[in-house]
Amino acid sequence: MGSHVQGEDQVPVYESGADALQKLQEKWKSTAAPYPAMYSSFLGGIVLDPAMMALPIDDHMVHRGHGVFDTAMLLDGHLYELDTHLDRFLRSAAQAKVGTPFPRDTLRSILVQMTAASGCRKGSIRYWLSSGPGDFLLSSSGCPGPAFYAVVIPSDYAQCRDGVRAVTTSVPMKPPLFATMKNVNYLPNVLSIMDAEERGAFASVWVDEQGYVAEGPMVNVAFVTQGGELVLPVFDKILSGCTAKRMLALAPKLVEAGLLKGVSTQHITADDAKRSVEMAFVGSGLPVLPIVEWDGQPIGDGKHHPLSKLIDCFLERIGMRPWIVAFGWLMRIRVCALV
Amino acid sequence: MGSHVQGEDQVPVYESGADALQKLQEKWKSTAAPYPAMYSSFLGGIVLDPAMMALPIDDHMVHRGHGVFDTAMLLDGHLYELDTHLDRFLRSAAQAKVGTPFPRDTLRSILVQMTAASGCRKGSIRYWLSSGPGDFLLSSSGCPGPAFYAVVIPSDYAQCRDGVRAVTTSVPMKPPLFATMKNVNYLPNVLSIMDAEERGAFASVWVDEQGYVAEGPMVNVAFVTQGGELVLPVFDKILSGCTAKRMLALAPKLVEAGLLKGVSTQHITADDAKRSVEMAFVGSGLPVLPIVEWDGQPIGDGKHHPLSKLIDCFLERIGMRPWIVAFGWLMRIRVCALV
Repeated sequence: MGSHVQGEDQVPVYESGADALQKLQEKWKSTAAPYPAMYSSFLGGIVLDPAMMALPIDDHMVHRGHGVFDTAMLLDGHLYELDTHLDRFLRSAAQAKVGTPFPRDTLRSILVQMTAASGCRKGSIRYWLSSGPGDFLLSSSGCPGPAFYAVVIPSDYAQCRDGVRAVTTSVPMKPPLFATMKNVNYLPNVLSIMDAEERGAFASVWVDEQGYVAEGPMVNVAFVTQGGELVLPVFDKILSGCTAKRMLALAPKLVEAGLLKGVSTQHITADDAKRSVEMAFVGSGLPVLPIVEWDGQPIGDGKHHPLSKLIDCFLERIGMRPWIVAFGWLMRIRVCALV
Repeated sequence: MGSHVQGEDQVPVYESGADALQKLQEKWKSTAAPYPAMYSSFLGGIVLDPAMMALPIDDHMVHRGHGVFDTAMLLDGHLYELDTHLDRFLRSAAQAKVGTPFPRDTLRSILVQMTAASGCRKGSIRYWLSSGPGDFLLSSSGCPGPAFYAVVIPSDYAQCRDGVRAVTTSVPMKPPLFATMKNVNYLPNVLSIMDAEERGAFASVWVDEQGYVAEGPMVNVAFVTQGGELVLPVFDKILSGCTAKRMLALAPKLVEAGLLKGVSTQHITADDAKRSVEMAFVGSGLPVLPIVEWDGQPIGDGKHHPLSKLIDCFLERIGMRPWIVAFGWLMRIRVCALV
């Protein structure tokens, strides 16, 4: 993916689109295609050639960030929680004043067909609604119509058992209006995680101006208090995470089993949260990642992960492998032609 | 640009990139190409075929908003203030932790070559630095390198003499860190101008929590007070506009000529600002657009535009046409092969 221009060198001009495509195809020749399929409503189909997995430069999602997205895990040929994610996706779109070129059922059908066409059985899908291409203005009022894009991302994830480090970031939080809709304006999140990486941490945690814990840059956070209660920050200023909500739905079973004293969403200060016996990032793809140190301070004893153990105990009781069970209560959608 | 999928209909699958390109070219066949040239460092060249004016779906500017941009006016085959804009562009990139695939001189050379290849003599150019394609993660640490994209946008603008309406928007302002770097996270700006359009106004004005005037969604605002002073809001929480700064550089000449009493940047409350005798949006492409009504309240006498008149008087004195003169002190770059 090198570059060819230096100083006053002449830049190649491709008059023919076919010549430009050929150039891109040559770039990909020596590399495995990273994504097996992409859908574009602008093209009106699914593309398998990585050289054409693109969107127009004048799409308002590209140059104005006027787009929303969501995701779904792909495991063993199944898409997990697709309907929950699609519901949030359409809520985000409505909040962001982004339309859709198709009704919900068609979006869902396209995602399933794209996943089937990809032949991929493990990874995730990502999809976007954009106010669409049409011009370089700010308002989308001159755009012919919204666009829908989607891609299949292969990934070989597994539950991480080792704890990670977290740091509080000084990168400003987004206003609640923008934090609660899943849109592509993620520069604060990008700078926040890059800040964490530079400081040797896995990810950052936002703490609001009042000192209350908010969220990570692409995940929620969860705590087990000294009193044995599972606490997640209230979703009023942060993204309502699908995996976090699933955790809240599952946790009462752990209370019944005597492994937790209670479960709630609360405004919890960072000071109180740091006295937790356990802390974790929670998000699809993790789904629960223990945090053993926050701002240099050990969380719990820094070695054991009670929450993880509690989950394990619980999972063993019902005789399923932990990773699968974490998604065991989620709605499954068979990907046609795959399973 | 219609869509082809309905209900459970089969979505076309393009195994061959050439077939996908042909489909896109057919879409463009009956339509004039909206942009005569685009540059992509990912491609390593300038494309003239609209079907290939695209960027990869996994570019982090697309899915995370990890990109910055800037612009320059193109008039009579000249690029105006390109160096001022390039300086701000690279400052924005540094603030947003976006690298560049080329040094400044090469970026500049590419923009000039692209503009020349376009054959366009009037309009503008827009250009972006992105952390680049590579994956769908949040941090750009896994991306092979940053990307540079640029496009030529023909436009037949002229100075608008009619005053427009403005409204104060309730869409939350961006935190200063993000408002002062020109990045593609413009969803607040998009929602703010769409709010204004829905209320029959040309554009919106942000007023901060303390009641001070900030900026418009893609322009600065300027006032002439009852005392005859030109006032622009301080650039501490808003974008430092190139045209606004040019206005501040030109205004002392109007003071010398006795047409203004003074010129300054100040923290000015909306209440005070609404008592101005004149108000205008200021930005490249306008460059000064009179505002005759703000939140339903006439500004000045609602008919005459003293600032505009003052500028005209001044311009007439030096014998140049207003539009040209507004840029008369700006650095000109001859676009090679054009003039």
